[in-house]
Amino acid sequence: MTTSLKNSAPELLYLLHGEPEDLALAARTFRAADIAEALLTLSPDLAAKVLGALPFDLAVQVFDEPELAHHRAKIIRLVKDPAASQLIEAMSADQRADLFRELPELDRPRLLKALDEETRATLKSLLRYAPDSAGGIMTTEFVSVPADWNVERVLRHISAVGQAKETVYAIYITDPASGALQHVVSLRELMVADRTIPVSQASDRRTPLTVGVSTDREEVARVISKYDILALPVVDADRRVLGIVTVDDVIDTLVREVTEDVQKFGGMEALDEPYPSIPFHRMIKKRAGWLCALFLSEMLTATAMQRFEGEISRAVVLAMFIPLVMSSGGNSGSQATSLIIRSLALREIRVADWWRIALRELPTGITLGTILGVIGFVRIELWQMLGLFDYGPHHTLLAATVGFALVGIVAFGSLAGSMLPFLLKRLGFDPASASAPFVATLVDVTGLVIYFSVAFLILRDTLLR
Amino acid sequence: MTTSLKNSAPELLYLLHGEPEDLALAARTFRAADIAEALLTLSPDLAAKVLGALPFDLAVQVFDEPELAHHRAKIIRLVKDPAASQLIEAMSADQRADLFRELPELDRPRLLKALDEETRATLKSLLRYAPDSAGGIMTTEFVSVPADWNVERVLRHISAVGQAKETVYAIYITDPASGALQHVVSLRELMVADRTIPVSQASDRRTPLTVGVSTDREEVARVISKYDILALPVVDADRRVLGIVTVDDVIDTLVREVTEDVQKFGGMEALDEPYPSIPFHRMIKKRAGWLCALFLSEMLTATAMQRFEGEISRAVVLAMFIPLVMSSGGNSGSQATSLIIRSLALREIRVADWWRIALRELPTGITLGTILGVIGFVRIELWQMLGLFDYGPHHTLLAATVGFALVGIVAFGSLAGSMLPFLLKRLGFDPASASAPFVATLVDVTGLVIYFSVAFLILRDTLLR
Repeated sequence: MTTSLKNSAPELLYLLHGEPEDLALAARTFRAADIAEALLTLSPDLAAKVLGALPFDLAVQVFDEPELAHHRAKIIRLVKDPAASQLIEAMSADQRADLFRELPELDRPRLLKALDEETRATLKSLLRYAPDSAGGIMTTEFVSVPADWNVERVLRHISAVGQAKETVYAIYITDPASGALQHVVSLRELMVADRTIPVSQASDRRTPLTVGVSTDREEVARVISKYDILALPVVDADRRVLGIVTVDDVIDTLVREVTEDVQKFGGMEALDEPYPSIPFHRMIKKRAGWLCALFLSEMLTATAMQRFEGEISRAVVLAMFIPLVMSSGGNSGSQATSLIIRSLALREIRVADWWRIALRELPTGITLGTILGVIGFVRIELWQMLGLFDYGPHHTLLAATVGFALVGIVAFGSLAGSMLPFLLKRLGFDPASASAPFVATLVDVTGLVIYFSVAFLILRDTLLR
Repeated sequence: MTTSLKNSAPELLYLLHGEPEDLALAARTFRAADIAEALLTLSPDLAAKVLGALPFDLAVQVFDEPELAHHRAKIIRLVKDPAASQLIEAMSADQRADLFRELPELDRPRLLKALDEETRATLKSLLRYAPDSAGGIMTTEFVSVPADWNVERVLRHISAVGQAKETVYAIYITDPASGALQHVVSLRELMVADRTIPVSQASDRRTPLTVGVSTDREEVARVISKYDILALPVVDADRRVLGIVTVDDVIDTLVREVTEDVQKFGGMEALDEPYPSIPFHRMIKKRAGWLCALFLSEMLTATAMQRFEGEISRAVVLAMFIPLVMSSGGNSGSQATSLIIRSLALREIRVADWWRIALRELPTGITLGTILGVIGFVRIELWQMLGLFDYGPHHTLLAATVGFALVGIVAFGSLAGSMLPFLLKRLGFDPASASAPFVATLVDVTGLVIYFSVAFLILRDTLLR
């Protein structure tokens, strides 16, 4: 049974108006993540009150939840001062840096001044890194020990300092002289090792996986998930460990990236905040931009149609299949795009593989187009035979036009859909950016040209004479 | 530096033809995940040879990599028999169950017989569960101790058995009499605790989070990522722990689900295997089904157009804006769909919230539609004024038709796009299934009707007389 606390927000409010001890006691049965979720639904004012009424260690855990990220800055400004700085002091270093990134310029100096020297120095160094880099998501609370300690001593060290660390399950073994990272040993390896051997002999002695501060957080997520490790050290040029990124940060990163990708893929800017709570005007802003851009480029279809005005007026029946052939191109393009975006994201393929993909998508597109072309041909002939609609004396030529146009358009859609993510990536954009609607627009315009060209070739002596 | 071994496949092959010791030695510098990745690019025959030449413990690690999942069955059939069963014995229980799920019926009895009694019993019990349930992804190698042990004894127990467990970082404390789960304690809590107290006093004593065997793996992933835990116990009706799901399984699950969702969202069946290695005919099969379904439903646009044949022949100029207005409806629908799919997946909203979303998407759609409508109106009037195209004497009415139709179509697109995921979910389907192209088709047909209805209202006394 997973405890899902839909109603913890009202419950917290109710308890807030009773005895403070009741709230503290009841809150003990809640989990930090659930309380954080409940706080999201309260006004910053009330959230600050609830936070103030919780036992301090629970309040710290709640305030440390990454879920609260976008609300933390608003809440902390309403917490009275000794409590506010105590809370910030007690947060983990990565979440604290996130909080300060969100704080308005105005509040920063006041809260910064209230912190102790060491916390302030760490915070300032973390704030130097971009929020989507390894430096920006790492935390500084890790366990590192010199290589000449023995296993027993390391275990005793962990018992002493373990409470305050983000993780104690990966221990970083450093060169006693230079402080450079030599090996990583897991707590499990230490537990099963002989207690008297030097700690460096308890590890598997392979060169540890590391990243630099500027490594993209998606790459960090990829390394952690590929190698199934609990934490990845971030090192400087001299291989000194500056911080670590833990697996739970990576899950948060993965979930966030997926949301962004799906939204971009749906043809809009990433919202960057939960859909149910984003204000109306901000949502319009995030959606209107791309919608207008797509609308403006889709205007090319009107321009293309104007060129074929003569054809349409001579054969109105041609216009009837425009939506059908256009959407088929868009659908096949959207399939190809989604395949390539995922394959690129999983590193199954590289940008340099583009021509191999092209050589694969072209026959795929032709095959799929032929299938649809045959269905389209049969549909028109069938309707004619059954007397459902009269396409005129040249119905077979019309059916052939639709059929051949579909082959060309679906093939073009697959090709364009598969190549666009490569192009976007090559140009330095995220391949997921609005790819599907973008492909649809590209394929729509080209599809019209293909359709009318095929029509001209097949019907020039009959319908289009 | 993250070691990326693009060329380890050829290197492994090269070493295979030299001294076996060279291969074994060189392989020591590789990581299991990298060797597994290299094996993916080799034929099962060669992969089996490489696996046979690796030191046994490394071979086990490589064979245990979830990345190999779809190839393991093909490889193990080509490994000679004592080696094959040794390898299977040494795998983790969850990966072993996966392997047997992939094995052809023919090979199962032979390999099953070679396993020892206990392994076989565990395997058979795991195979009873659906592969996408908690039971299907859990492993049975966890540490559990009776509540009356003290911390010191538990730590010594972990040192003794830790090597063979999937994780030693979460320890399950059970009732000494019934074996039911009482608490979970982390190794970190044990490390910092007084060694003489009972283990149950070292934990936070909250009711532990658990799931049942039939819980969906996506729900398992959600719980683990929400509560930032390293492993989640799977319990039976009497709260006895049957197995655990670890955080790295969840990452694999997340990545796989995302791939499936993106592919379904792109309008196709999930491939279930990597894009670069899927055979041509299987890819066509996965893509043609949905493409044909969408094509057949999109045929409704042709039927709708047939109804408006009269209007089009009287005012060919109306046909020119069909692709533009249709695609705008599709784009706004695709935005709304992607927002709702993600929001549902993140549990930000529930199916019961549908009406609240509808009340939100309708004004959003009207606003977005008005923005596009104004642009569309200006575009037509501008082209007319600048003499770029002659839309005839009723150009202002035509521009108004396009403008008002856009308001209606974009609003309908947003509404339909946001409601479809709810409908799919309500009907028991995955909301991500082909949603975007599905919405596009729905919006295309309705869009035509809206467009021609608006045209009829505005132009009935002029162009359409």
